[in-house]
Amino acid sequence: MAGAIAYISRDTDGVLWNKVLEAGLGPIDFRTRDNLGNKDDIEVALAWKPDRGLIASFPNVKLIVSLGMGVDHLLADDKLPPGVPITRIMDDGLVGQMSEYAIYFALRHHRDIDKYAESQRAKAWKPEDFVDTIHRRIGITGLGTIGQDTAKKFAALGFPTAGWSRTQKTVPGVETFHGPDGLAAFLARTDILINVLPLTRDTRGLLDARLFAALPKGAYLINMGRGGHVVDDDLLAALDSGHLSGAALDVFNTEPLPADHPYWTHSKVKVTPHIAGATNPRTASPGVIENIKRIRSGQPLINTVDPVTGY
Amino acid sequence: MAGAIAYISRDTDGVLWNKVLEAGLGPIDFRTRDNLGNKDDIEVALAWKPDRGLIASFPNVKLIVSLGMGVDHLLADDKLPPGVPITRIMDDGLVGQMSEYAIYFALRHHRDIDKYAESQRAKAWKPEDFVDTIHRRIGITGLGTIGQDTAKKFAALGFPTAGWSRTQKTVPGVETFHGPDGLAAFLARTDILINVLPLTRDTRGLLDARLFAALPKGAYLINMGRGGHVVDDDLLAALDSGHLSGAALDVFNTEPLPADHPYWTHSKVKVTPHIAGATNPRTASPGVIENIKRIRSGQPLINTVDPVTGY
Ligand SMILES: NC(=O)c1ccc[n+]([C@@H]2O[C@H](COP(=O)([O-])OP(=O)(O)OC[C@H]3O[C@@H](n4cnc5c(N)ncnc54)[C@H](OP(=O)(O)O)[C@@H]3O)[C@@H](O)[C@H]2O)c1
Ligand SMILES: NC(=O)c1ccc[n+]([C@@H]2O[C@H](COP(=O)([O-])OP(=O)(O)OC[C@H]3O[C@@H](n4cnc5c(N)ncnc54)[C@H](OP(=O)(O)O)[C@@H]3O)[C@@H](O)[C@H]2O)c1
Repeated sequence: MAGAIAYISRDTDGVLWNKVLEAGLGPIDFRTRDNLGNKDDIEVALAWKPDRGLIASFPNVKLIVSLGMGVDHLLADDKLPPGVPITRIMDDGLVGQMSEYAIYFALRHHRDIDKYAESQRAKAWKPEDFVDTIHRRIGITGLGTIGQDTAKKFAALGFPTAGWSRTQKTVPGVETFHGPDGLAAFLARTDILINVLPLTRDTRGLLDARLFAALPKGAYLINMGRGGHVVDDDLLAALDSGHLSGAALDVFNTEPLPADHPYWTHSKVKVTPHIAGATNPRTASPGVIENIKRIRSGQPLINTVDPVTGY
Repeated sequence: MAGAIAYISRDTDGVLWNKVLEAGLGPIDFRTRDNLGNKDDIEVALAWKPDRGLIASFPNVKLIVSLGMGVDHLLADDKLPPGVPITRIMDDGLVGQMSEYAIYFALRHHRDIDKYAESQRAKAWKPEDFVDTIHRRIGITGLGTIGQDTAKKFAALGFPTAGWSRTQKTVPGVETFHGPDGLAAFLARTDILINVLPLTRDTRGLLDARLFAALPKGAYLINMGRGGHVVDDDLLAALDSGHLSGAALDVFNTEPLPADHPYWTHSKVKVTPHIAGATNPRTASPGVIENIKRIRSGQPLINTVDPVTGY
């Protein structure tokens, strides 16, 4: 049998991953975090938030797979064995869920749903003024796999949609901006800001007082990137001053969000527990299976991550 | 000057309609409900819920325009002058809003948002199990201007989507059913039922105990057609038995919804005050202007309504 596959996650037990990988690869030597056995055997590490240095303790590891589409949880381990390729899962189901999350909270703001809920509690029949869809400008930071899907779907709903990325991108029906120089113009035309950047050296803390001030008054924030993108005190200040009208937050600097965090009770904040997109091993496994076959037969990998840019 | 245009609505004052029609037609003789002047002058009636017999009192009326996309409010007047053509507004903005409404409430149910709101109140970090998008079946009754737009947008989001109409329809990416014989199979495969039928002799009361029983257990209802489609007691019974998991209702048998109606306080019902789609005179007027020009020059009309089928 080929080398062992180590499943390193505290969040799920790996039973389903074992099953789907076996379905694609035949019999495998699948080991979980608490039963790694002889580490010399480990050829592939599937990881979600691995302990620092753990993967480096596998002397023969040939492939590291991030169990999430984001890889910050993995690159946070500054002892990853150098030169071992890093890949990430790709999951169409997850990508679609992320877009659903963004569309849901954008429509909630766009269509004043919270006001209607209040009217229902008061048994009041009270139509609100509305903003035409063509005047509600959506802006998405991050135009990668997820951001492009989200942007195209907002454009298809008739919203004027723009995206911001590191390098220049072309997305049909979407206005594109890029780089630090393109940020101000992008923010100035954005009523609903949807963040889906990866967390890297360059993007950490990007959603700060300066960025919020560059948005039009009344703008709404949806963060489904990472908690580390947001300077929490700056966001709370922008909400409290009324400059931002609200925020839907799926990711946080500390997860689970601590019970005493002001977000939980803030009237303008919706908290969800990092569920914007959930990995489904059934849809995510084909790319992983493909890469395990490729690493074993010496072919170039897919879904690779660049440890230098951090995504 | 050509004949007068009578604006008959209790809901809005008509100032904006006057402006947009004048922009397209030049100077017009625009009269509101309380200042109709000599009724002999009236050539065109723009109407929303007209009093019974009022339009019949305009001896020279040549064109009746429904100020909503639905015409049941107009055809409810059984004294409409026979032979006078009836048209309705068409408004891309309104159509898009209707699809937004359906998508919003479908995602709210699909993504268990109300459970997350409850968890937020309890400061509990609690991811819920999820249903993959490809397993959440959307069904739309009515595949006309609105239903087709809505269906295409759900299909683009990755939901298995079907629609039901009177005559056979082909919509790319959407499974279609039609006629009374096609209804049961359509309902059996529908987890979220979105009603956007016109209210006619044939469709009144369609959403009754029998129809609800034909949906799978746990199905969710979104009604943005007309209140008259729903047998309220049957809906309440289906919600209370747990057969239906919830309902979002925009339209009601009596509007405004009376203060003592059980929908207001029902834990499984979301009430909105007939706002799924709002007419914007700016986007709705081009078709009306076109028809006023056509009736004056004797050309065939667009956006006509068949008083026999009732839509
Ligand atoms: N909340 C959740 O449940 C959840 C689930 C999955 C993923 N996520 C988050 O979503 C993130 C994005 O995922 P993805 O698959 O779309 O990533 P991706 O395909 O790697 O795309 C990343 C995008 O961000 C842009 N970017 C990176 N650094 C930038 C910078 N310094 N300035 C401007 N733009 C920058 C990239 O620009 P270029 O196009 O120029 O390279 C690219 O457009 C993940 O990293 C993860 O943090 C969250
Ligand atoms: N809540 C709101 O704010 C709001 C706003 C606007 C409109 N509406 C409602 O939405 C309705 C639909 O508007 P629309 O512009 O999409 O209408 P439409 O273009 O006239 O289409 C009506 C659709 O319903 C189908 N239909 C009619 N009678 C039927 C029957 N007996 N059995 C099965 N299917 C039947 C038609 O079938 P065929 O295709 O075979 O003709 C057609 O697909 C309006 O009538 C109005 O009641 C509500």
